Amino acid sequence: MNTGAVAPLLTADVDGGAISLRRALPADLPAIVALLADDSLGAGREQSQDMTPYEQAFEAIDADPAHLLVVGELVSPGAETGQVIATFQLSFLPGLSRQGAWRSQLEAVRVAESLRGEGIGNLMVQWAIDESRRRGCTLMQLTTHKSRTSAHRFYEWLGFDASHEGMKLTL
Amino acid sequence: MNTGAVAPLLTADVDGGAISLRRALPADLPAIVALLADDSLGAGREQSQDMTPYEQAFEAIDADPAHLLVVGELVSPGAETGQVIATFQLSFLPGLSRQGAWRSQLEAVRVAESLRGEGIGNLMVQWAIDESRRRGCTLMQLTTHKSRTSAHRFYEWLGFDASHEGMKLTL
Repeated sequence: MNTGAVAPLLTADVDGGAISLRRALPADLPAIVALLADDSLGAGREQSQDMTPYEQAFEAIDADPAHLLVVGELVSPGAETGQVIATFQLSFLPGLSRQGAWRSQLEAVRVAESLRGEGIGNLMVQWAIDESRRRGCTLMQLTTHKSRTSAHRFYEWLGFDASHEGMKLTL
Repeated sequence: MNTGAVAPLLTADVDGGAISLRRALPADLPAIVALLADDSLGAGREQSQDMTPYEQAFEAIDADPAHLLVVGELVSPGAETGQVIATFQLSFLPGLSRQGAWRSQLEAVRVAESLRGEGIGNLMVQWAIDESRRRGCTLMQLTTHKSRTSAHRFYEWLGFDASHEGMKLTL
């Protein structure tokens, strides 16, 4: 895999090296699924025996410019390649309300547990906010499980307002 | 405008006639915007002086099969044509989480105030649930403002779980 073909979206120094955000590639899927599964809520929802459904979902995301699947790589000092330690999906959605506003939607934000609290989530969400503005969105939205109280504080600190109930129906 | 070219998605008898759901057409925009504006929260967010931003948003929605903008028409007994009295947008979004689940998202659900409580919202959301299943979605989601307590009860009655905080950031 030649990850050099994917231009970084953002590069920043953090404790332990440098973090680089870039579009996800098919070869990143095992690492992304591991991040999704390494989570109190995700543990029971993911599996790694059969990657086919993830590969199909990746193709659908990657084929549509309305969706951007991003990974964060941590590159240790002196290392040439990095390790995928974070991910998120950002989608750009048209709608009539709010005078035909485009809105961006953040989903599946994850940072490896051992690296939380070091500002990586902040770098990612700030980049997503900037990218949403660049694409002409006037509203950004996400839902976060009510049990994730530290995530609520994080998003409120970034300016998000917990104004809505986020309702889900398993089909 | 020839609305006859748009096949109904659903037709059902209600008090005062029959309701028919169909894909929205450009000529429906004034009625849809009026529904969005006739709302405690929407009143300050919409305007009808310049329809250009709504027309542009309509084109973006209509050009992408991931989005379905629907209107409900009420046809009085004996009448040939109906009046747009309800609307919603349903979007189909790919993602990696939940084993690569497709999820559907319901936005901008509105029923004319004079016709609320007559089961029209129920018909619309039930149709949206069925359509989401037909398209292979395994999760459906929406956010609803915390002040809309009767909407919360309605969605919970339909089986939705208010498990998440819905967070918004104006850009």
